[in-house]
Amino acid sequence: MNDRIREILSWYDSENPGVRTNLARMLNHGRLGGTGKMVILPVDQGFEHGPARSFAPNPAGYDPRYHFQLAIEAGCNAYAAPLGFLEAGVADYCGDIPLILKCNNHDVLNDERDPISAITSGVSDALRLGCVAVGFTIYPGSAERTTMYEELREITEEAKSVGLAVVVWSYPRGSSLSKEGETAVDVVAYAAQIAAQLGADIIKVKLPSEKVELPEAQKVYQKYEIPIATLADRVRHVVQSAFAGRRIVIFSGGVSAPDDQFYNEARAIRDGGGFGSIIGRNSFQRKKPEALKFLSTVMGIYEGSVQ
Amino acid sequence: MNDRIREILSWYDSENPGVRTNLARMLNHGRLGGTGKMVILPVDQGFEHGPARSFAPNPAGYDPRYHFQLAIEAGCNAYAAPLGFLEAGVADYCGDIPLILKCNNHDVLNDERDPISAITSGVSDALRLGCVAVGFTIYPGSAERTTMYEELREITEEAKSVGLAVVVWSYPRGSSLSKEGETAVDVVAYAAQIAAQLGADIIKVKLPSEKVELPEAQKVYQKYEIPIATLADRVRHVVQSAFAGRRIVIFSGGVSAPDDQFYNEARAIRDGGGFGSIIGRNSFQRKKPEALKFLSTVMGIYEGSVQ
Amino acid sequence: MNDRIREILSWYDSENPGVRTNLARMLNHGRLGGTGKMVILPVDQGFEHGPARSFAPNPAGYDPRYHFQLAIEAGCNAYAAPLGFLEAGVADYCGDIPLILKCNNHDVLNDERDPISAITSGVSDALRLGCVAVGFTIYPGSAERTTMYEELREITEEAKSVGLAVVVWSYPRGSSLSKEGETAVDVVAYAAQIAAQLGADIIKVKLPSEKVELPEAQKVYQKYEIPIATLADRVRHVVQSAFAGRRIVIFSGGVSAPDDQFYNEARAIRDGGGFGSIIGRNSFQRKKPEALKFLSTVMGIYEGSVQ
Amino acid sequence: MNDRIREILSWYDSENPGVRTNLARMLNHGRLGGTGKMVILPVDQGFEHGPARSFAPNPAGYDPRYHFQLAIEAGCNAYAAPLGFLEAGVADYCGDIPLILKCNNHDVLNDERDPISAITSGVSDALRLGCVAVGFTIYPGSAERTTMYEELREITEEAKSVGLAVVVWSYPRGSSLSKEGETAVDVVAYAAQIAAQLGADIIKVKLPSEKVELPEAQKVYQKYEIPIATLADRVRHVVQSAFAGRRIVIFSGGVSAPDDQFYNEARAIRDGGGFGSIIGRNSFQRKKPEALKFLSTVMGIYEGSVQ
Amino acid sequence: MNDRIREILSWYDSENPGVRTNLARMLNHGRLGGTGKMVILPVDQGFEHGPARSFAPNPAGYDPRYHFQLAIEAGCNAYAAPLGFLEAGVADYCGDIPLILKCNNHDVLNDERDPISAITSGVSDALRLGCVAVGFTIYPGSAERTTMYEELREITEEAKSVGLAVVVWSYPRGSSLSKEGETAVDVVAYAAQIAAQLGADIIKVKLPSEKVELPEAQKVYQKYEIPIATLADRVRHVVQSAFAGRRIVIFSGGVSAPDDQFYNEARAIRDGGGFGSIIGRNSFQRKKPEALKFLSTVMGIYEGSVQ
Repeated sequence: MNDRIREILSWYDSENPGVRTNLARMLNHGRLGGTGKMVILPVDQGFEHGPARSFAPNPAGYDPRYHFQLAIEAGCNAYAAPLGFLEAGVADYCGDIPLILKCNNHDVLNDERDPISAITSGVSDALRLGCVAVGFTIYPGSAERTTMYEELREITEEAKSVGLAVVVWSYPRGSSLSKEGETAVDVVAYAAQIAAQLGADIIKVKLPSEKVELPEAQKVYQKYEIPIATLADRVRHVVQSAFAGRRIVIFSGGVSAPDDQFYNEARAIRDGGGFGSIIGRNSFQRKKPEALKFLSTVMGIYEGSVQ
Repeated sequence: MNDRIREILSWYDSENPGVRTNLARMLNHGRLGGTGKMVILPVDQGFEHGPARSFAPNPAGYDPRYHFQLAIEAGCNAYAAPLGFLEAGVADYCGDIPLILKCNNHDVLNDERDPISAITSGVSDALRLGCVAVGFTIYPGSAERTTMYEELREITEEAKSVGLAVVVWSYPRGSSLSKEGETAVDVVAYAAQIAAQLGADIIKVKLPSEKVELPEAQKVYQKYEIPIATLADRVRHVVQSAFAGRRIVIFSGGVSAPDDQFYNEARAIRDGGGFGSIIGRNSFQRKKPEALKFLSTVMGIYEGSVQ
Repeated sequence: MNDRIREILSWYDSENPGVRTNLARMLNHGRLGGTGKMVILPVDQGFEHGPARSFAPNPAGYDPRYHFQLAIEAGCNAYAAPLGFLEAGVADYCGDIPLILKCNNHDVLNDERDPISAITSGVSDALRLGCVAVGFTIYPGSAERTTMYEELREITEEAKSVGLAVVVWSYPRGSSLSKEGETAVDVVAYAAQIAAQLGADIIKVKLPSEKVELPEAQKVYQKYEIPIATLADRVRHVVQSAFAGRRIVIFSGGVSAPDDQFYNEARAIRDGGGFGSIIGRNSFQRKKPEALKFLSTVMGIYEGSVQ
Repeated sequence: MNDRIREILSWYDSENPGVRTNLARMLNHGRLGGTGKMVILPVDQGFEHGPARSFAPNPAGYDPRYHFQLAIEAGCNAYAAPLGFLEAGVADYCGDIPLILKCNNHDVLNDERDPISAITSGVSDALRLGCVAVGFTIYPGSAERTTMYEELREITEEAKSVGLAVVVWSYPRGSSLSKEGETAVDVVAYAAQIAAQLGADIIKVKLPSEKVELPEAQKVYQKYEIPIATLADRVRHVVQSAFAGRRIVIFSGGVSAPDDQFYNEARAIRDGGGFGSIIGRNSFQRKKPEALKFLSTVMGIYEGSVQ
Repeated sequence: MNDRIREILSWYDSENPGVRTNLARMLNHGRLGGTGKMVILPVDQGFEHGPARSFAPNPAGYDPRYHFQLAIEAGCNAYAAPLGFLEAGVADYCGDIPLILKCNNHDVLNDERDPISAITSGVSDALRLGCVAVGFTIYPGSAERTTMYEELREITEEAKSVGLAVVVWSYPRGSSLSKEGETAVDVVAYAAQIAAQLGADIIKVKLPSEKVELPEAQKVYQKYEIPIATLADRVRHVVQSAFAGRRIVIFSGGVSAPDDQFYNEARAIRDGGGFGSIIGRNSFQRKKPEALKFLSTVMGIYEGSVQ
């Protein structure tokens, strides 16, 4: 491993070598391998939003094998999906790309204000499928968060004991937060902190807006003049909030935006010291050639070959 | 061990030698080692209040290693933190300071009137991280308290069976208490008693006010003229309420106050027979040189070198 | 053992010899040893009512060792307390008096109309502390009673399997009962029956009043002219309701009353065939010499030396 | 993965994807990655023969990190070692080379005629160290073989259930075999068959001699004129004996021989359809530059760049 | 921790922080704390040789508390003993010295040629007694060694998972070794290697003689001219054989010798890069003042204050 990867792994020196090995597998894989940056393809939208909303824009995506191919051809660091999608495609791609088993999922057939995801798979599935990590979503701000934190704690303990890394999707939602508050910079930073304190190895959050949601936090942001004016500032603050940058934090772009905007967001993540992107709908909802071109530009931004 | 430590340990003579060894490790460590007094650094505010509110005043605190360094340099008896903060820093400081793993945590993204903390780590984590104790928060007065007491009972049984000490944060809160009632002297004394009855080895409560909250208690305090006029009086009453002083009770100061007030509080704790302080925000939210000076004064008060 | 003890133990001949041994230890201990009568000292009020309300009248009681000493010097048959009080005192008195570990407790910082106690210790604690029995409170009449009955069932199964006796505090309370109904004779008799049916070896109830609470019961009490005019009548009815006297039923006096009234109650318990008293506040809330004198008189009534 | 790797993995299509992923990790790693050929570095001689016999020829090999470096620089497909050697080196090389944990070992301080290896580590160790496979030695021909087969069966079941591949060292030894018989072609072929029948994913045997040991076998080899005249013939026969080549069979060279002879053996393995070599003493007992040159030649023979 | 301790702990970076913490506790304790050198007091001779042979020379040693006092007063890094000796003394010395629970023992009432020790305690005992490590004896060379290696493997896995370090007494014995061969330099080096491969954190061997026992080894020692002429040479070779010095190796002196000889041995251990001594009979079989003086000289040699 090169010096940058060695440096990143040193942050995880209380983990056993198995966890560090699986982190290294992701960090060293694909086009960004060895740079310390990551682009991960996640495809859990079929469960989360329903199949048509997810795959009608590019029907090739109904096929579970499509996403393996896309992630491999694009040179992603890893591919993340729920149990069924991995089971239905993995046999053709064993060892070709690090896999993350998304272990809980939520659907919108019953969309509560205080959501909780169902546990849909676990550590033994991840091992038998050859995954490098388990993925888990928590919704800080939900009235059900205590249950989710405790579920995560259990799966984390089990996963790490067998050498699997833990990737946490930390998405604030719930009746006590405004819709805008879900991506408020203080809330996103808080969500990153919570995931890190719960033992996450890799933390996925949404890109933060300039809004500060919590009144108590507003006073602090003003008093200490925490820079949050630019997206890069906010990314830097979120990364700082995840143990002064000693945990890998990656960002999701959310709903589809013009490509130029997305590229600018990637530049802000890079400039703010973020570790990369997790890009779902923006990649698999367009035809593969376009998706590959799009992902190539994003990776170029992270590796510095695209300004 | 010296006579004072031997006396304190004699109160715990129904615990196994492992628990007593870990109590001794805390009592004998740092500048106050051997005095029977303790100053503990707790840093769970990142989870409890969010990262910016916790660390913006002194951004060095975003880094989990900072708090280990602070606690070690200040000569604290122990450092307490949630799973993530310990995992991300412990490897550089193995054996340098007794560690307390805070096993449940609460965030304020959804702040209920009857709070309950999520279990975020456990005894097996404490062992693999080399901790001397587990820490656990209960909220007497919360409608959820029964669940918390039972969770504490389970973790206590497991922890003590493997020689770990148990530190309980007993913080009255909930819909049946007024805001002021949370620190009323009768309520704080009651919270100390509950923690002791639940098997706590070390009990952390807030400094009590002169207020008496519960009507039934008011009659008693008046009839028996229980002295609660001065803070030292009230500390003495709380310590008495924890088995006539035969359990270690330490006090937290809460939100930032002028240093002189804090020192006076420490003097009251000392004069009232309290065993010390657990000082979070007042220490890690200022620059390290100032924090070290501040903690040195507090420890000086406890050891008698500062009046 | 003498014939009376042999007779009492014969009622428990489906229990294993371990349970019977521990019942015999209580029945044969102290001044009333061998008489078939019992006076037990219970001290759980620190948890149930708070420390000042419990111990301010006689501050020696803040110290967990005090109650061991009191029970031993008075010649009680057993001492019952929560985990913390036993842990903090037992080492000095190993084997000096039979111990009952009170395994659930309730505080009044949040005092619901339909109470449930938290499980605060268990069978493994009772074994490691050298207890002869576990104690458990149920609140018949509470909306939460089903949970408590099931908890009791589990702890009873576990306790008896390892030879521990089971003492049940059966205290009707809850939103469906009037305050006076809690001690109505039909309700107390019903509570004794429930405890007996749940497998209690020793049943503790409050002294019953002349009131009959339940309308359906009133018809029966009238139709069959069940004698409930005197306290001795009512005690006899309650004892009869606990398997025709084939389970040990003891009575608590409740709040402090003039001593003469208490002695008369003891005479009624004796004359009605009750097995004795469980006396908390009336004993530990006065100075020890007075408490010893008071308990001596009560025991004298039971053994017949005091009329 | 390329077509050859896909073909090889197709032989293992009853294994779960985790096992196939870990096989792919070995097959795709290093200089021979993707060719279907393998060169593995095993270093268990410290345990098997003692440290001086193993490492005195090249004292750098006393250091556990040396062998990781050698395997990585040489471009081996995997590195195999006992627990201690992996534990003491892995942290510096997480993810840099596929690891095989040798789970049983034998020493020669007491060298029985019917040997059995001690189980020195297991599946949980392999997972926490980030290994791709467990390795296990059986001694067909030993009076203790039944125990070893059953131990292997248990570890195989456990390993595969968590996605680890199983590598079996199948070395005939024991009181019923002549010294020469240990490498007799019928015996080696038999040993390969036994390992395959026991569920081995990768089988390691010694290069077979022209000798046929067992009388019953001699008749058959003669009757059916099985070609065993050349080493390539014999390799082909052994590979055929491991399920018609549908299991990966690799060969060890044994004690040091002139390099030219070793290269000729590698050519025979290649020509006979063997899958490669496992080379211990011949590589780590010479200085690293020489070892790298030696291994490069061997790999060149397998990939076809060296004739 | 200082740089030397940090360096030593870095060799154990695949262990969890708990194990590293307990290693640090030993390395940082006592007079040699922080030097990287260790002197450990072991007292298992009461079991191994019988009480009179062990304690008659200094009858104070019949009392289990004596050895705690001796180890503490002498400033040893740790005290090692079987279950009973620790249980009977630990309560008075909780936290005063790191403890090693010797988990297997052998007596000489039946002294087989191929010995095996009985497992006499385990990890749960070590935890409840507050120990930092478990100790375990293996007899390489015994026909029973396979069983002992497998027992050690199980206790090692369990101990490390709960953060306890593992100390292995590796003492070659058995029918296949000559009496002199038990301390032959090749055999001792081999025993150190085996313990290290089995996962020992600290390895205890006997001081090696100039003899080379095994014929195969003799060739190697001659061919490579391994320096074994002086005791320091041989210590250096044994330390090298334990992973090039990356495992802590300490030496026992065996039966009583003149003090000057013992001091010379300590000088040789120091000069050869050994990590210290484990001194039983030579310390506890003389009066305490003499023992303290003796141990002070030995420690002086290790710290350099005595030449």
